[in-house]
Amino acid sequence: MTHGAWVEVLRGETVESRHRVHIAVVDDGGRLRASAGEPALRTFARSSVKALQALPLVEDGGVDRFGLTDAELALCCASHGGEPYHVEAARSILAKAGAPESALACGAQPPWHEPSASALRAAGEGPGRIHNNCSGKHAGMLALARLHGWPADGYHRAEHPLQQRMFAEVARWTETRRDALATGIDGCGVLTFAVPLTGLAGAFARLCAAAERGDEGPGRLVAAMRRHPEHVAGTGRLCTDLIRVTGGRIVAKVGAEGVYVAGAPGEGLGIALKVEDGAKRAAEPALLGVLLRLGAITAAEYGALEGYAEPALMNTRSERVGRIRPVVELEARGG
Amino acid sequence: MTHGAWVEVLRGETVESRHRVHIAVVDDGGRLRASAGEPALRTFARSSVKALQALPLVEDGGVDRFGLTDAELALCCASHGGEPYHVEAARSILAKAGAPESALACGAQPPWHEPSASALRAAGEGPGRIHNNCSGKHAGMLALARLHGWPADGYHRAEHPLQQRMFAEVARWTETRRDALATGIDGCGVLTFAVPLTGLAGAFARLCAAAERGDEGPGRLVAAMRRHPEHVAGTGRLCTDLIRVTGGRIVAKVGAEGVYVAGAPGEGLGIALKVEDGAKRAAEPALLGVLLRLGAITAAEYGALEGYAEPALMNTRSERVGRIRPVVELEARGG
Repeated sequence: MTHGAWVEVLRGETVESRHRVHIAVVDDGGRLRASAGEPALRTFARSSVKALQALPLVEDGGVDRFGLTDAELALCCASHGGEPYHVEAARSILAKAGAPESALACGAQPPWHEPSASALRAAGEGPGRIHNNCSGKHAGMLALARLHGWPADGYHRAEHPLQQRMFAEVARWTETRRDALATGIDGCGVLTFAVPLTGLAGAFARLCAAAERGDEGPGRLVAAMRRHPEHVAGTGRLCTDLIRVTGGRIVAKVGAEGVYVAGAPGEGLGIALKVEDGAKRAAEPALLGVLLRLGAITAAEYGALEGYAEPALMNTRSERVGRIRPVVELEARGG
Repeated sequence: MTHGAWVEVLRGETVESRHRVHIAVVDDGGRLRASAGEPALRTFARSSVKALQALPLVEDGGVDRFGLTDAELALCCASHGGEPYHVEAARSILAKAGAPESALACGAQPPWHEPSASALRAAGEGPGRIHNNCSGKHAGMLALARLHGWPADGYHRAEHPLQQRMFAEVARWTETRRDALATGIDGCGVLTFAVPLTGLAGAFARLCAAAERGDEGPGRLVAAMRRHPEHVAGTGRLCTDLIRVTGGRIVAKVGAEGVYVAGAPGEGLGIALKVEDGAKRAAEPALLGVLLRLGAITAAEYGALEGYAEPALMNTRSERVGRIRPVVELEARGG
């Protein structure tokens, strides 16, 4: 295997499949500090930029106006598991913003958190829009629309002022010209943006640096995620457990199709990675492999997260037949 | 994109993810005729060689001895959907061989065929070993053990004479030295073999050529698969629909982790491919892309199978937000 980053899937001790990973590590001055594969690869950020999409609600005064709690703000940045406390927080945001649940534009989706999905089924309830992993983001968007007096109707569409605001926000933080951003429709129906990994990594370096400096919007947002990691993802989820295990030294956010973004506020670094083939099973090992290689997490922290970094492969007989592991060699770049 | 084979995942018109595909096209003389990526890549064959694993049952006289039907023989080669007629055929093989259902070593698994899985749940029945997609293979193995007077106990283990026979059979057909085969434990608990793609492709070219020549074992086996395509996979499955659409001109078999093997009996060609990252979603588009590029299927046949070749990506709002498509450039090799 040549220089670069992979996630290997082993059956016994033989590599059965491998995932290529593209990585950009960027500092808050926008300098590429380390990389693997194609750091300038343009890919859809998907849910990895939910924090950027939640920022206008803080900066424009919506959090104060509606009296949102830190946990509710964290949920606006979340791909949550649809656990009862997530659903409760999403409903609370909607209630405070005076928006009915039916205004949510995201599709109905069973909770990702399996016990919560089972409990719904057992109660004879179908999954609703409120259980969609993006319902916090959507509730926050409805609150922002209410704040600005924009119509709730069609808030998810590209031409709506709310999505135009999201577009501008993502372009600003990623320092990407708007005409260099490609767009598509996300799993939940809103606009999503294709951005170079370098831009995504830079955005998280800048966001975390701004939070460290005490800039109010980024400061409150990052603090909310660190204080309420369970609202950023949920039980048995890496985004949550990484904040917990590192005591908030690392704030990370997953995106669909093999994207992960992380910020190390204390070090002024942002990290963005894309599993080339979009595999979810490779994104978590890749992130932990990069963080360990950078020295951004300790071997003990990696060990505490080993179930995410090097998960076992089980067969239908419940035998352990293999495992997944990251193999990361970063190319150092000039600072 | 340089020379080679990929499966692209597009969101709107922008590539979001891409899967690399390694391909070997080999004739029945073992000559590499066309390729993409690394045709000698060694990978686990998984379920793609179930036909080779069923062959001893025909050649040693087990099919005649136990009076197995063609449909039952086809099921021995299947990764089936657990539909009622699959379960019935698996139970029939076991009954004819005098083996109880509890002798199956594969783990319990819900039927892959969703309506059959729902029906089981609605009936308050848990999934059993008989619903495992490999239960036909296991039933056939138990019949072979009975035929030879081998103990049923432990028939799935590497050291059992039955798995040693499978090992020899795979080595023989793939023309791979036994010490060049790596082994692992499959999803259903039996031994699985890592073989170069060239060997896998050659095995299917040879198997189909032998069937065309009228060799009894391969002839009966391939005929059974062509006559009973629904027993090779099931409703809504490419292996089944490809045999149907081509009138048996192509016989193909999927394997887990992105493997597909196909034989074109009339043309003396075998094809083996591996999606590097193991993605199921890419294996079907890749196979159809290769077959079209080789001229082994017509544009009309590709069109009839377009739901497999270029599936749509839908979001939680049931909107079509993208699609998957194969991009295959084969390198021609000397004949």
